[in-house]
Order: sequence, then structure tokens, then C-alpha cells
Amino acid sequence: MLPLLHEDCFKRLLSITLYHAISTLFVHMDLHNYLEIQKLSIDKALDTLLPREDQFPPHLHKAMRYCLFAGGKRIRPILAIAAAEAVGGNPEDIIQEASALELIHTFTLIHDDLPAMDNDDYRRGVLATHKIFGEAMAILAGDALLTEAFKILSLGCKRGVHKPEHIVSIIEVVAEASGSRGIVGGQVEDIDSEGKVIEQKHLEYIHQHKTGSLITASVLLGGTLAEGSEQEIEHLKTYGTSIGLAFQITDDILDIKGSSEELGKKTGSDHNKGKATYPGILGIGQAEERKRELYEEAIHALQSFDEKADHLREIGLYIIERHC
Amino acid sequence: MLPLLHEDCFKRLLSITLYHAISTLFVHMDLHNYLEIQKLSIDKALDTLLPREDQFPPHLHKAMRYCLFAGGKRIRPILAIAAAEAVGGNPEDIIQEASALELIHTFTLIHDDLPAMDNDDYRRGVLATHKIFGEAMAILAGDALLTEAFKILSLGCKRGVHKPEHIVSIIEVVAEASGSRGIVGGQVEDIDSEGKVIEQKHLEYIHQHKTGSLITASVLLGGTLAEGSEQEIEHLKTYGTSIGLAFQITDDILDIKGSSEELGKKTGSDHNKGKATYPGILGIGQAEERKRELYEEAIHALQSFDEKADHLREIGLYIIERHC
Repeated sequence: MLPLLHEDCFKRLLSITLYHAISTLFVHMDLHNYLEIQKLSIDKALDTLLPREDQFPPHLHKAMRYCLFAGGKRIRPILAIAAAEAVGGNPEDIIQEASALELIHTFTLIHDDLPAMDNDDYRRGVLATHKIFGEAMAILAGDALLTEAFKILSLGCKRGVHKPEHIVSIIEVVAEASGSRGIVGGQVEDIDSEGKVIEQKHLEYIHQHKTGSLITASVLLGGTLAEGSEQEIEHLKTYGTSIGLAFQITDDILDIKGSSEELGKKTGSDHNKGKATYPGILGIGQAEERKRELYEEAIHALQSFDEKADHLREIGLYIIERHC
Repeated sequence: MLPLLHEDCFKRLLSITLYHAISTLFVHMDLHNYLEIQKLSIDKALDTLLPREDQFPPHLHKAMRYCLFAGGKRIRPILAIAAAEAVGGNPEDIIQEASALELIHTFTLIHDDLPAMDNDDYRRGVLATHKIFGEAMAILAGDALLTEAFKILSLGCKRGVHKPEHIVSIIEVVAEASGSRGIVGGQVEDIDSEGKVIEQKHLEYIHQHKTGSLITASVLLGGTLAEGSEQEIEHLKTYGTSIGLAFQITDDILDIKGSSEELGKKTGSDHNKGKATYPGILGIGQAEERKRELYEEAIHALQSFDEKADHLREIGLYIIERHC
């Protein structure tokens, strides 16, 4: 009987392993589908919300749309949608406000790439906005995208979907995250630290402001508009802060280990510019460890949420395991 | 008796003339005092609202404050306050939101002066922001001022002074006025038209967007927050549109006739850059005439308002008669 038992045991083990492999594959496929579907909806919303290319002045509207539709994972709007789902909201109700986050993200990319700043020639796999439209137009296109984002956020009341107090609240959150105490402050310190030896704490400030602040604002936007409780919003904030920093550490690692083709910009560019990075300060091993630690903190923050927060959990894993 | 009658008549005529001269002087003195008092309140509000210079990152906050406090008439916030008064509002209630308009105006000045744009070395009588802090910091300081403006606008609800729906409404108005269909659109066309012969209609588009849109938004902000009626808001819009264009025509004329000392920047700079101006297209005489015509349209728009709109009327006259 033993060989038979062994065979049974073997079959059971095989089926368990297969089950896990297949279910992991399904989770990945599910997330992949989810990300694709959300991206399509966001792109559609962006296309509808933004002035058309032929609207006056046409070259400005062309420049605004150029970098926006050159690519991009739309991770910030998707995080907002997943956060809304996590507190029981309907994704369709917040798609416009979520899309505004992508306008702010694109504004930062266009301005960061300028010759006076990071002087990058490529973005999202194509030539940077200033390389195609010139510096003046790139500055103005960035300015206009930032402004348009606030316009779109303000329209939520008119549609009758959101309460004005919620709209005001998210405008405050997004403005705080984007300004001198958010993205812009982070970029100032990023430029200033080029070629300098800085401590991990300072680097954490840069990453948390330059990248983390808008990611945190994204989940807060989704949670607030979907009328999450105060406690839920607090947990989402912790999730956002942790996953936001993990996102940037992953970017730092990809800048060394990733392929230019997948990233859509040159690898090693941070290192070549003398920019401080996590792997540069801690080494790849410890940077990977810090990234995983932050991921676990993010997941832990969601422990009181039910399966409606699964997309947030899966996006967390995707953020630290992505290749681009 | 005739000589006596003549003397009486002469005295009466003299007293009427004197009365008019003195009352005009009083109006001017009154307006002068009003503008000074409002400017002081706005400067105080701006100083309180904006992050201090020692707040991290300090060099960014220094750059943001540099151009803001270098001077400026604060005409946009004052127009907002005067519009609030016109519909029976309390100026103190809207001073913070009115001040946000100055942040947006200063953002446009900093970005317009950049080497990639108008390449101006002086602004408000001192070196331009990019000449002191460098291009990267000037771009970022402008970005941060624009964002901070929306942050400040969003705070009106928290103070418990304004209804959230009014705050959302003014954010929409200000964003629309500042973006691609407002100031930024006007600046794009302004740069594009340099050295070209353009028609009056096209120049009117540039002026109405680059300058007029934020001036109109200013009176709408004041009128809306002070809960003016729909009809009052409509009249304020007409006033703003007319006086906004008159403001820019006056600027064009001052660029030719004014003194550098009073203006705080070089005179003749528009002409030297080949920029289209009203006097350039129509000649000084017709430009002056168009300016006065617009002033009269603005005053006409206020005909249903009582004496509470007198400051708006007087500011209208000041706008077209100023020397700087």
C-alpha cells in the first residue's frame, strides 16, 4: 500500500502546488486585467476632460496631450479608484477626479525633464516635451496641466455626484501634496542634493515628498470621495505613505537593474547625475529589504478592510515587483 | 449793481469750481487711502498664509516670497474685496481668498520673466526671480505659488466663513482663468505673436486671456463669496471683462509713455521684443480712446449698484489713469 500512499501523497502535493501556482497566476492575470481596464477608462476620461488639440491655442493643447498620452501606467488614478472600492465606493463615480491626478503627475514629469532641471531627453519612451515643443511651451504646458487638474476636481459638484465639502477637502489634500510642502519641495531637495553625499533620512524626505505625497493623496482622494470613515481614511493614509516610498525605492532599483526599453527612459541616469538613491546609500540588498518592509507596513494598514481592499493589496505587490 | 453781480457770479463760479476740485481731490485721497489700507491687509494675510522662509525647504520658500513681496499694487485682491463690498459683503471675510489671487499673478510674472519666455531681468523694481535664484528654482517657485493659491482657496470652508459650494465655484472660476483657456493660453499666443503683424482681434484675445481673465475672476471671486445675486455676478463679470482689457491697454501705453522708475521694469521692452501692443496696432490716440470706451462700459455695468460699488468705480478710473 505504501507506494500507492506515496503516489496519493505525491498527487495531493502536486495538486496543492498546482493550485497555488494557478491561483497566483489568476491573481496576476486578474490584476493585469484590472489594471488594463482601469487604464482604458482613465485614458478615455482624460481624453474627454482635456481640451481637444484643435481648441485654441492648438499648439498648447497638443503639447499638453503629447506627454500625457505617450504612455504611463496611470498608477495614481488607479490607486484612487482601488481606495474608493476598498471603502465600498463605485469606481465610476470618481473616475474624473482620479484622472486629475494623472494631469498633476504629468505636469511634474514635463517640468522635471526641462534643461534647467534634470535635463532629460526621453520620457515614457518618446522625446521629452521640451525636445518637441521647446522650453517655453513645455513650461506652459506643465502650468496648464496643473491648473486643469484643479478645474477638473472642482467639477465634481456640478455633476451632482459628490458633496461640495468632499470636493473642497480633496482639493486641499491634492494642493498640499503638490506644492512646496509636497512634490515641489521634494524636487527642490532632489536637485540640491545632486552630487552630494546625503543621509538616508534626507533621501527619505526627498522620496516621500517628490513621489510619496501624490500617491498618498491619491488613496485619500478615493477614500474621501467614496465617503470612507475617518478611521478608514487614516488607514489609507498609512498605506499610501508606505507604498509611496516603496514605489520610489523600486524606481531607484529599476534605474540600476531595469532595461531602458521597458522603462522608456535611460537606465543609470540617476547614478550618472550624481543623484542620491536608496541602492546608492544602502546597497541593493538593504534597499530591497526596506522596500519589502514598507510593503508589509502597507498591507498591515489594510488589515481591518475586507476583500474589497484586495485590489489595493495586489497593487501594493505589483508596485514593488514591477519591471518598469 | 452790475459789477457787484459780476463779482457774486464770479465768486459762485469760483466756489463751484473749488468744490469740484476739492471733492475730486478727496475722492483721489479716499481711493489712495483705501488702496493703501487694503494693500496692507493683503500683505499681512499673504505673510501669514505663506510658509515662512525658514520652513523646509528654506531656499524654495525664500524664492516664493522674493517676487511676491518685492512690490506690486495688489490690484486683483483689491478688486475682489471691492466687488464683495459692492454686493454688501464684509471685506474681512474674503481677504484670504482674495490674497490667493496675488499668488497666481506672481506665479505668472515669475514664469513670464524666464529666459525661455520673455527673458526679462527686472520685475517690480528688483532683479527677476531667475536672476537671483536660478532658472530651476524660479520655475519651481512659480509652480509652488500656483499650487499654494488653490490650497488657500480650499481653506475657506474650514474657517467656517464660506459655504463649500461657493468655494468650489470660485476654484472653478480661478482655475479656468489661469489655465490653457485663460492666462497660459494668452501667454502662448503672446510669445507666438512676437515679431509678427497681428490683427486687433488677435491682440484682444491675448490681452483678454493673459490679463483680463484673472481680473474678471477676481471680481467674480469677491461677488460669489459675498453671496451676490446671479444678476449682480453677471454685471460684475461685464465690469471685470471691460476693466481687465482697459488695464492691459493702459500697460501697453505706459510701456511707451511711462518712466522705468515708476514701472519697476524697462519701458519700451514690449516694442523692443516685437510684441504686438494696442498703440502699435492702433496708434496712441485710438488706444487711449479704446481704453476710455472700455472704462465707460465697465462703469455702465455697475449702474444698478448703489454707492457700495463706488470703490469699484473709482478703481476703474484709477486703472486707466495710473502712471505705473
